[in-house]
Formats: sequence, C-alpha cells, structure tokens
Amino acid sequence: MHIQEFQNMMQRIYFHRDSQRGTIGTYNWLVDEVKELEEAIKSQDKKAMKNEFADVLAWLASLANVVSIDLEEAALLKYNGRCPKCRKSPCQCPTLPKSRG
Amino acid sequence: MHIQEFQNMMQRIYFHRDSQRGTIGTYNWLVDEVKELEEAIKSQDKKAMKNEFADVLAWLASLANVVSIDLEEAALLKYNGRCPKCRKSPCQCPTLPKSRG
Repeated sequence: MHIQEFQNMMQRIYFHRDSQRGTIGTYNWLVDEVKELEEAIKSQDKKAMKNEFADVLAWLASLANVVSIDLEEAALLKYNGRCPKCRKSPCQCPTLPKSRG
Repeated sequence: MHIQEFQNMMQRIYFHRDSQRGTIGTYNWLVDEVKELEEAIKSQDKKAMKNEFADVLAWLASLANVVSIDLEEAALLKYNGRCPKCRKSPCQCPTLPKSRG
C-alpha cells in the first residue's frame, strides 16, 4: 500500500476524532505510542512489536492529516533514493551518528 | 511509493549505519526526531513540518529494518480499512480518546 493510501485510510477511519482532538492531543498520542514501541522492542515479542510499529505509523499519519501534510510527498521530497546530506546511496557521510539531520 | 518500498530504500541508504548503531541507538534517534516534529508543528512552518514528518517516517523505517519488521505488513495487519477495535469505518468506538489502543 502506498504511504498516501495508508494516510487516506487513517483519514477515513479517524479524521472525525483526530480533528476534534486537535494537533497537540494527537501529537501526544504519537509520543505515547513511541514509548509503547520501546517497551515492545525491549520485550523482543515480535507480535507486540508489529502492533506498536503499526500504531506509531497510524498516529503519524493521523497527525499529518490534522496538520494537512502529505506524508508520502514529504518523505520523498527529502529521501529520494539518496542520503539528503551526502547525496549518496549507501550514505557516505563522514560523521556518525549526526549524519541524518 | 509503497510503505515497503520506502522501508527498502532506507535499508539501501542507511542499513550499514543503522545496524552498527543498533536498536536502542536507532530508537533514541526516532525519539529525537519526534521531538523535532513537535517544534516544527509549533512553528507552523510547513516546510519545517514536511522535513520533520519525513525524518520521523525515515527513522521509524530504519528502526523497523534493525529489528527485521516489515512496516507495511505490520500496519495492514492491524489497520485493514476499519478501526481494529470497533471494526467500523469511520471508527465508532464509544470512548475518546482511548479508542485506538
């Protein structure tokens, strides 16, 4: 599924709630889901990890919907097959880990 | 672009660095990018927002690569056109905001 299609699906399912909750409320949910992802990773439970990766992506798409950003367009504007800093693939930036600003 | 294609692109550009940095280091970068997204949203600068949405998605894909999770598969396993809780689209869960666990 295209990134844009996934974002549109989130719009259809959740925009009535996301827009009511607003930008800050939706952002805070994203942060909570990122914390839950950490717990899932630490548990090394693949099912839990999949569930939390799904949630982080879903809330990122919801947040993008609330602020009217096209997530796919934004992603491809910056990451178009090469590292946006060194313009190489694989990335050959000299410094670690500040190579993806 | 498909979610999976974007994740594969991140793999080609960054996996040699992401795998060296490891799971916790990559997770910490994701957290930093989520914080930068907050600042961009507060600034209401569309260009900055696009940049940070791109980074959050990129680091989420990198983290998924490090732990060998297919982000698209995970997302569609949970969000398949309907709310995973109430099974409706649009979501009709009775409670807010705990309707997306």
